[in-house]
Amino acid sequence: MNYPNGKKKNMISKKSRLKPNHSFSNRGMSLEDDINVTNQYYLETNRAVIHKKPTPVQIVKVNYPNRSAAVITEAYFKQASTTDYNGLYRGKYVDFEAKETKNKTYFPLANIHDHQIKHMNSILNHGGICFTIIRFSTFDETYLLQGTKLLEYWKDKMNGGKKSIPYLHFKENAFEIPFKYQERVDYLAIIDQLYF
Amino acid sequence: MNYPNGKKKNMISKKSRLKPNHSFSNRGMSLEDDINVTNQYYLETNRAVIHKKPTPVQIVKVNYPNRSAAVITEAYFKQASTTDYNGLYRGKYVDFEAKETKNKTYFPLANIHDHQIKHMNSILNHGGICFTIIRFSTFDETYLLQGTKLLEYWKDKMNGGKKSIPYLHFKENAFEIPFKYQERVDYLAIIDQLYF
Repeated sequence: MNYPNGKKKNMISKKSRLKPNHSFSNRGMSLEDDINVTNQYYLETNRAVIHKKPTPVQIVKVNYPNRSAAVITEAYFKQASTTDYNGLYRGKYVDFEAKETKNKTYFPLANIHDHQIKHMNSILNHGGICFTIIRFSTFDETYLLQGTKLLEYWKDKMNGGKKSIPYLHFKENAFEIPFKYQERVDYLAIIDQLYF
Repeated sequence: MNYPNGKKKNMISKKSRLKPNHSFSNRGMSLEDDINVTNQYYLETNRAVIHKKPTPVQIVKVNYPNRSAAVITEAYFKQASTTDYNGLYRGKYVDFEAKETKNKTYFPLANIHDHQIKHMNSILNHGGICFTIIRFSTFDETYLLQGTKLLEYWKDKMNGGKKSIPYLHFKENAFEIPFKYQERVDYLAIIDQLYF
């Protein structure tokens, strides 16, 4: 995609891209939408190949009213057995889950399922990059929490500890993801610092 | 999972595992089923973390007859924008599509969509392992065709060449995937030889 001045869309100067611009407020857009926009931008600018997996659905009945279109008339939502997003960045396997909460004081660990924790554990054991993106929507703050950290909180919970991660812990143990116009949740900026 | 003799399930001697055993015939099982069984086995034996992505569905209407269950009453199949399978093996990102054909003389390239080709191209550019598993169901033969090879055939097609890959080409340019009892389509055996 070219602009009239002949510059490519992703040729915007680094300075202007890194400048926080609060006029593009994030409020109102869901975290999922923001991540989809970001991934699309990463894909178009050839930075990474990361996609959201389709919602898992158990299909029960399908009608074929004509040759061209099949209509699913009975189906149920299934619980995901893995995380929602995965892909490839700088030659590495990347895998993450995204959650938002309206809670102001903590992130409830019940938002992450057992089998997702198991999956994250496997990814880390096999050398993948694994993390969670968590948004406190009331504050419009989005954090990247590394998989290893999440697993520590989870282990603590299983041993009778807290069932949630206090908001204040995110300030210390997680990384706030910058908000940009194109890369609305520019998590790769954090990944670059943490893993490369 | 342990056997009565104390040996782990995946500790079967290499010799017996590599011996072809035609009593476990593949006929009747779909390629998708076989790959799912294989991926499950890889997961349970901690060899790799590779999953099939859910079928992409456009959900239009959802009914909530009671609090516990949501019923999808209108939905449509969407075309996949990526390949069907991806995951992590020996620290590398792995991505593939699987197709079977009843054709005895060639594999029609129309079975692979443009955007899947584009996706495979991106994966290769970003350093991922990318391939296609193609089964000629009449012969009960399953081949691994490397992404680079598939792209060559595709490019040739776009330049007015053949619209299919002749069966005989698979004998020369692809790798037959061994059939085993647990790893019904043991494609990682080929990946080990090609990429590590």
